[in-house]
Amino acid sequence: MSEIVGTQSLRFSEAPFILSSASVVGKKEGEGPLGHLFDAVGEDDKFGCESWEEAESTLQKEAVALALGKAGLKAEDMRYIFAGDLLGQMIASSFGLLDYQIPLFGVYGACSTAGETMSLGAMAVAAGYAEQVVTVTSSHFASAEKQFRFPLEYGNQRPKSATWTVTGSGAYIISKKKSPVKITGITTGRIVDYGIRDSMNMGAAMAPAACDTIAAHFRDFGSSPKDYDQIITGDLGYVGQKILIDLLKEKGYDISKNHSDCGIEIFNPDEQDTDSGGSGCGCSAVTLSAYFLPKLMSGEWKKILFVPTGALLSTVSFNEGMNVPGIAHGVLIESERL
Amino acid sequence: MSEIVGTQSLRFSEAPFILSSASVVGKKEGEGPLGHLFDAVGEDDKFGCESWEEAESTLQKEAVALALGKAGLKAEDMRYIFAGDLLGQMIASSFGLLDYQIPLFGVYGACSTAGETMSLGAMAVAAGYAEQVVTVTSSHFASAEKQFRFPLEYGNQRPKSATWTVTGSGAYIISKKKSPVKITGITTGRIVDYGIRDSMNMGAAMAPAACDTIAAHFRDFGSSPKDYDQIITGDLGYVGQKILIDLLKEKGYDISKNHSDCGIEIFNPDEQDTDSGGSGCGCSAVTLSAYFLPKLMSGEWKKILFVPTGALLSTVSFNEGMNVPGIAHGVLIESERL
Repeated sequence: MSEIVGTQSLRFSEAPFILSSASVVGKKEGEGPLGHLFDAVGEDDKFGCESWEEAESTLQKEAVALALGKAGLKAEDMRYIFAGDLLGQMIASSFGLLDYQIPLFGVYGACSTAGETMSLGAMAVAAGYAEQVVTVTSSHFASAEKQFRFPLEYGNQRPKSATWTVTGSGAYIISKKKSPVKITGITTGRIVDYGIRDSMNMGAAMAPAACDTIAAHFRDFGSSPKDYDQIITGDLGYVGQKILIDLLKEKGYDISKNHSDCGIEIFNPDEQDTDSGGSGCGCSAVTLSAYFLPKLMSGEWKKILFVPTGALLSTVSFNEGMNVPGIAHGVLIESERL
Repeated sequence: MSEIVGTQSLRFSEAPFILSSASVVGKKEGEGPLGHLFDAVGEDDKFGCESWEEAESTLQKEAVALALGKAGLKAEDMRYIFAGDLLGQMIASSFGLLDYQIPLFGVYGACSTAGETMSLGAMAVAAGYAEQVVTVTSSHFASAEKQFRFPLEYGNQRPKSATWTVTGSGAYIISKKKSPVKITGITTGRIVDYGIRDSMNMGAAMAPAACDTIAAHFRDFGSSPKDYDQIITGDLGYVGQKILIDLLKEKGYDISKNHSDCGIEIFNPDEQDTDSGGSGCGCSAVTLSAYFLPKLMSGEWKKILFVPTGALLSTVSFNEGMNVPGIAHGVLIESERL
């Protein structure tokens, strides 16, 4: 086989299709500019559960159920589930997906996990290891604040560079069965450390990783920004977007005209007090599903590069004075509609 | 392709080879019954670092360096690295593997991660996505106690059912290039919840998952215990081993004569005060590399089923009163020597 291109990419000779996808979000996301596009919006962010973590598990469970329903498939039709979240030891996934009884590959790439799960899912289907698989990621504002920052009751102040963790989960059915949209390639990221130590500025920590992966993608595929309807990062926010555009310009690539960021699209910062934008494993997953994918399904767009971005830190590494390295995983998605 | 067998397994038509492997362990592991077999034993468990987490990162870095060295390969010869550890947000991997600059798939399956990384690595090479990849997992007694239990200074008492987290990291080069040993198939685990709530009895939490995966493996491949020189679980310990053997008997499989557990092999419980046995992401990885794999390399054994086992919990899920579900991933490894 000759699916390997360049140093970090694959081009699938039998590209797998995205058969369906689904997005489930919290109240605040439902009130944002994309609110009317999500498949389900919670009335309150506990989703009827006892804890924030359980609520996040419910998000994943619901997202998978909706994606399966849209495709007219059942859990037992899924050969594998590729899943991840931001919580320590990935408890949102472990408890959310238990009932499905699908063989599970747990995946961690911080907020890049949506890209990582879709990459691995596409690899499995393209290789003939599965007729179809499901991928799912989630984040929850309250469980993430508890994990990474302060108790909600403390009411800490946030700098303008901070992002707001999205409460949401996005699920994707990747299949051999035809649909209007397919995953034609992937570019897998490396860990990039620019020496950022500000845990309230994740955009700056992740932008160099996004730059590294996007530049590698262009090199590997011999392409340039104009070949894509849109290049879409996960959760760089306003601060990270500016850095990414500048860094890529230094490498000779101008993405200023066709770059979008899921974290920028999902909230209205003036009305929603979300500072630099949305973030989290769920942010890119729900925004791709609800907002960008339909443009490919309809044929309005032909080709996007989807690049979820992750910041590799924990409270332990941060408190021990370590840097915040980043990683970004690129997924090339194309429309079959002419 | 027809690599899919049964409900949870793959049989590789072009089975990838294990070109080399390496094990790096701490002082206590070096004093255990397998001490003389490990590639490197640390003089003290900080490995010259400032923190336990950094020490664990160093373990991964060293294990990868040694595995590469044994194969006569460099980091740039590796298309992907599949890596994971037990720490929140997988910081041991993020900081340990930064310098290698190999495209990274971060993976989390608790202590089953060694099986999960080897499964995904074998899938990638068998599909032609890579000439070779490296997989690595680690655990560290002190970083794990800090993460999951008590500060070391507290000197907590341990029940007899508790396991002792292994300080160690094992790395594997999986390649298209021939070696005497190949990965001929995998059986991917599902989440299994038996309602265990005792975080000091991980063996009981994981044994049902090991049973589920091993029984699925026999069903999928139409095989039985006698077809394997050894069936090797990751870190069930003495308590979990007994449960596993009993559970499999109920399903009609007797593995009592050819079952081994890495957690049982690595320590001498009478002399080393390790209670039920060793555990952790590093336990199965170093024991396979140092003790079991050589038996396949030499041709003494023809076929093993390697089944690392993981307990899916965090301190948050545990403190919120959740159960401890388990997961286990099976890797079928065969010798080419006649």
